[in-house]
Amino acid sequence: MKQTMHDALVLRPGPVVLAGYETSSKPLADVRGDKGQLEQSQVLTELQSMLYAEGAHGSRRRVLLVLQGMDTSGKGGVTNHVVGSVQPIGVQYAAFKKPTEEELAHDFLWRVRQRLPGPGVIGVFDRSHYEDVLVPRVHRTLTDAELELRYAAINEFEREITAAGTTVVKCFLHISYETQRERLLARVDDPRKRWKFDEADLAERALWSHYTLAYEAVLERCHTDVAPWFVVPADSKKYRNWAVGQLLRETLEAMDLHYPQPALDWNEIRELLTSEAPRPSVGTQEQGDGQGGE
Amino acid sequence: MKQTMHDALVLRPGPVVLAGYETSSKPLADVRGDKGQLEQSQVLTELQSMLYAEGAHGSRRRVLLVLQGMDTSGKGGVTNHVVGSVQPIGVQYAAFKKPTEEELAHDFLWRVRQRLPGPGVIGVFDRSHYEDVLVPRVHRTLTDAELELRYAAINEFEREITAAGTTVVKCFLHISYETQRERLLARVDDPRKRWKFDEADLAERALWSHYTLAYEAVLERCHTDVAPWFVVPADSKKYRNWAVGQLLRETLEAMDLHYPQPALDWNEIRELLTSEAPRPSVGTQEQGDGQGGE
Repeated sequence: MKQTMHDALVLRPGPVVLAGYETSSKPLADVRGDKGQLEQSQVLTELQSMLYAEGAHGSRRRVLLVLQGMDTSGKGGVTNHVVGSVQPIGVQYAAFKKPTEEELAHDFLWRVRQRLPGPGVIGVFDRSHYEDVLVPRVHRTLTDAELELRYAAINEFEREITAAGTTVVKCFLHISYETQRERLLARVDDPRKRWKFDEADLAERALWSHYTLAYEAVLERCHTDVAPWFVVPADSKKYRNWAVGQLLRETLEAMDLHYPQPALDWNEIRELLTSEAPRPSVGTQEQGDGQGGE
Repeated sequence: MKQTMHDALVLRPGPVVLAGYETSSKPLADVRGDKGQLEQSQVLTELQSMLYAEGAHGSRRRVLLVLQGMDTSGKGGVTNHVVGSVQPIGVQYAAFKKPTEEELAHDFLWRVRQRLPGPGVIGVFDRSHYEDVLVPRVHRTLTDAELELRYAAINEFEREITAAGTTVVKCFLHISYETQRERLLARVDDPRKRWKFDEADLAERALWSHYTLAYEAVLERCHTDVAPWFVVPADSKKYRNWAVGQLLRETLEAMDLHYPQPALDWNEIRELLTSEAPRPSVGTQEQGDGQGGE
């Protein structure tokens, strides 16, 4: 049987050591290049169109793509690729930045709940509730016991939304320290990208190994049957986009989607539409004086 | 001086009679075909990227594209085209359907305010607050005096958001009665599109002339200096997408956008990044036993 991208990238059992995961490997990379990309894009478009159609006809199913990773790992790039592949009206994008005062006044899952996708929609989270365990661990603003409570709350939350019809696809975009250096330098050297650079990025980069440990903990604690983690090698932008596209494709294929066929009398409707008077002028019925046509 | 799409499609002064506006004409259509489309898409991508960058650096400017039109006029199609042309992370899409109980419990502008785009973002409204004057007029659920109050409230609302940094681009996608027939028949005849068909669509189609009058009133009453209406001939999907893309392009060009250049010592940052130790392994610093590499 053909190996799936799900199989190839799913987190391996046991203690998580990210150094054991390649950042530049390309499992199940497509050898067809642009041709494969085009095919993926067409298949995704069709699948997502069916998901959306089902949502419009009462299905509760939806997909939540959670993107996590170090700065420059490509969360925005994946979003652009995935959303660019499908009809944007069926995708809902949400970026989670540093929490606001209002957000901090609530439970940490509050802001995330508000931006969950509706039925038929693919939600994309650029960062997520995982920031609320990563950052507090690295900056030591929560105790280990408090972190454990949050891991449990996240698992419960993901179990709850899965039961309500959401398929959750969690991707850790895995880049090397060297790749981040190159991408930060690219920002420094390109006047069109300098606006993305923030001095705070350097301070966070200095905490790379602390973030690595925080990610290892989170991957281990929040990898569940209903919402598993995938580790996506992300040194190559092209491969990263392809791999996430494949994860999404497999997810949608497994849902066995179909275009709803409303139980209407199509012959009668066709007859009604074709038997109308040919081409009445716009708006002249009530005006009756034929003042149209400039 | 070159004529702009703004000039070509802006609502003409005086009483509005939609029969006087062609649905199949193609003012300023691009003769370059796919080449022109590609260029438009590239220019839009760059302009929107600058708008987004300015938003990330404190600018309050943003764009709101309001799409109105009869059923099948292409509000979703324009959205897909426009959003497909630019980076999706800088676009926020909002569709307004029949108001919910909660929405009806508030002022009619309440739900619209909640979905206004943030700084740097292009908001796309697929239907909008205009539904709340169109439908009540056609179905006679509001008196003329109540409608006048809503027109005034809309003008005041658009003046307020414009003053706060939003450029509003309002497009009426103008199709003929015959084009709607063809598109509804296409839904009937294609099992992949039947899910979009709703018997209520036929009832609304029967009210075509009433909707035309309602649109004429709304175009006339809510066409202001700060938020003018554009009438986009929309019998041709290709032209319709091109024309809205051009309106957006001209809007963004007039904003004189630039990539922010943060006042940082770029040489120092470049030096910091390049003088680091070459390629530290991920996560091994703290673990120290080199158990990486599977």
